[in-house]
Amino acid sequence: MNDKLILLGHGSGGLLSRELLERVFLPHFANGALSPLEDAALLEWPGSSLAFTTDSYVVKPIFFPGGDIGRLAVCGTVNDLAMMGARPLHLGAGFIIEEGLTVEELERVAASMSAAAAEAGVTIVCGDTKVVEKHAADRLFITTSGVGYVPGGITISAANARPGDRVIVSGTVGDHGIAVLSQRQGLHFRTPVISDVAPLKGLVQDMLAASSGIHAMRDPTRGGLATTLNEIANSSRVGIEIEEGNIPVSGAVESACEMLGLDYLYLANEGKLVAMVADGDTERVLSTMRRHAYGRSAGVIGRVTEEHPGRVVMKNRFGVRRVVQVLASDQLPRIC
Amino acid sequence: MNDKLILLGHGSGGLLSRELLERVFLPHFANGALSPLEDAALLEWPGSSLAFTTDSYVVKPIFFPGGDIGRLAVCGTVNDLAMMGARPLHLGAGFIIEEGLTVEELERVAASMSAAAAEAGVTIVCGDTKVVEKHAADRLFITTSGVGYVPGGITISAANARPGDRVIVSGTVGDHGIAVLSQRQGLHFRTPVISDVAPLKGLVQDMLAASSGIHAMRDPTRGGLATTLNEIANSSRVGIEIEEGNIPVSGAVESACEMLGLDYLYLANEGKLVAMVADGDTERVLSTMRRHAYGRSAGVIGRVTEEHPGRVVMKNRFGVRRVVQVLASDQLPRIC
Repeated sequence: MNDKLILLGHGSGGLLSRELLERVFLPHFANGALSPLEDAALLEWPGSSLAFTTDSYVVKPIFFPGGDIGRLAVCGTVNDLAMMGARPLHLGAGFIIEEGLTVEELERVAASMSAAAAEAGVTIVCGDTKVVEKHAADRLFITTSGVGYVPGGITISAANARPGDRVIVSGTVGDHGIAVLSQRQGLHFRTPVISDVAPLKGLVQDMLAASSGIHAMRDPTRGGLATTLNEIANSSRVGIEIEEGNIPVSGAVESACEMLGLDYLYLANEGKLVAMVADGDTERVLSTMRRHAYGRSAGVIGRVTEEHPGRVVMKNRFGVRRVVQVLASDQLPRIC
Repeated sequence: MNDKLILLGHGSGGLLSRELLERVFLPHFANGALSPLEDAALLEWPGSSLAFTTDSYVVKPIFFPGGDIGRLAVCGTVNDLAMMGARPLHLGAGFIIEEGLTVEELERVAASMSAAAAEAGVTIVCGDTKVVEKHAADRLFITTSGVGYVPGGITISAANARPGDRVIVSGTVGDHGIAVLSQRQGLHFRTPVISDVAPLKGLVQDMLAASSGIHAMRDPTRGGLATTLNEIANSSRVGIEIEEGNIPVSGAVESACEMLGLDYLYLANEGKLVAMVADGDTERVLSTMRRHAYGRSAGVIGRVTEEHPGRVVMKNRFGVRRVVQVLASDQLPRIC
């Protein structure tokens, strides 16, 4: 690493995060289950197969329009399991609390986690609580881990997108990023932006029941849609072409981005997924998704190509094509 | 809760922690797997059975004599699985890093985790990294979660100690607590105290192979031996009687405790276990333990009784008996 210190950008989910992973963690931890860098590890298990994942949540502030750190921590881990085609079953939760957080706030977070877990049909089966002094943490951090059952025959993977696949996104992008930012900075938009944080277990189960042609799925969280598409293009060694005009984005998010100089392609989403689906199954998958509350505005935004493997190219409204890069550092630290 | 704010003592592993759990978390999260409050949740799994656990580590400082936060995070989670009789297999790790930590320090921690995982025969299969601003965390927090395979016929539980069982401890107590404290405060003892942090998977496998009469096991971490014995007495609705003179404690730890006014019964251990073993199997289990590097000074410190259920009573060197209470608040915050 050129830098000798860890910087905020190392937590962005973008290039610097990737560098940290490749230079510091992978040399020590590399193994067959970790190294594919999927959303969850797939493990052989006596008599069955197991998906296992973990994520830490440090979102600031801990309450924001449409959610809170508890709902985020449950949904994020549920979604990471669902993206592998696993059926999320059980969660663990580690709480790191700054001394002085009110018990009432912690209770609101616990209640929110419980509601999100019930909605996702998972149970929180283990946990731990640590308390640190004032200024040794920022109010509350939660690390959730999750286990899910992987039915036989599931081969969904970020490395499995194929030329000809259609690229589906389940709804509008950028809502979570703008919702958290507006709360943090005290910004008020004419139409308030609400986080999309939601568990996608049900939506994914419906999609899997409708089609065996879903090759890759991922939830575009840190780093946004742009970074997620680049990860899939890289892992699958395919090109991806998207059309800017087809990407669903709300008017409020679009104006907020213009005002703040942000690009919604890089904003975090917490209740959306991207799927690479065999061309022939696209309509069936889309209509299934649109019947689900979390997939109503699902649409096709592009296709997978043999050309320019590892690259994501976007055609804008004027027909001009440009390469969509991975997020280099951080647009918005502590977004999740 | 009488207090409206979260206090350091809520993270002690003692009475206040228990109160937080019972008043805030359990009302929202209660379910059959969580509510027994074991070291790991036991889950039914298609074709087999699964143990699942998570713990956050906030030890200060992150490097201490005999170990570091990385080794602690791996061993703590491996040991929580082993205490349930599970075979620990895979770990996940969530890193929360304060901006400005050096890459070299993070690499030392990763190398140490890798070595501890190799020693324990587990692989780190998933992970996540978040970075927060200066003063929003204290250098580095790690949350590990783990999954283990539970062989058929295993019924080890803190609720399963039986009158007549012998109480075995695997070695000296208090080493981790004093090692971390001495590093934190810059104390120097004539004989340096080294943390006992170690993975107990191998020791436990040997014990399980030697006897089917191991009824309960736990690693006495936060809250120490006193709190762990109280938890077992409570869960099993039995009494426990221990003899002070039989508790293994090093001379250095004993003098440090006298000097600092600490009680080694409440100091954290990170490479020790307590086991409740059927009387007839005690000698076989003990001799097995003493052949293992992490059980050389294992000994019997007491017995399980029908009398005074839920209470731990200690006879001191002068034959005087007193009740050993649960840790009320914190002797040493951020010990793990």
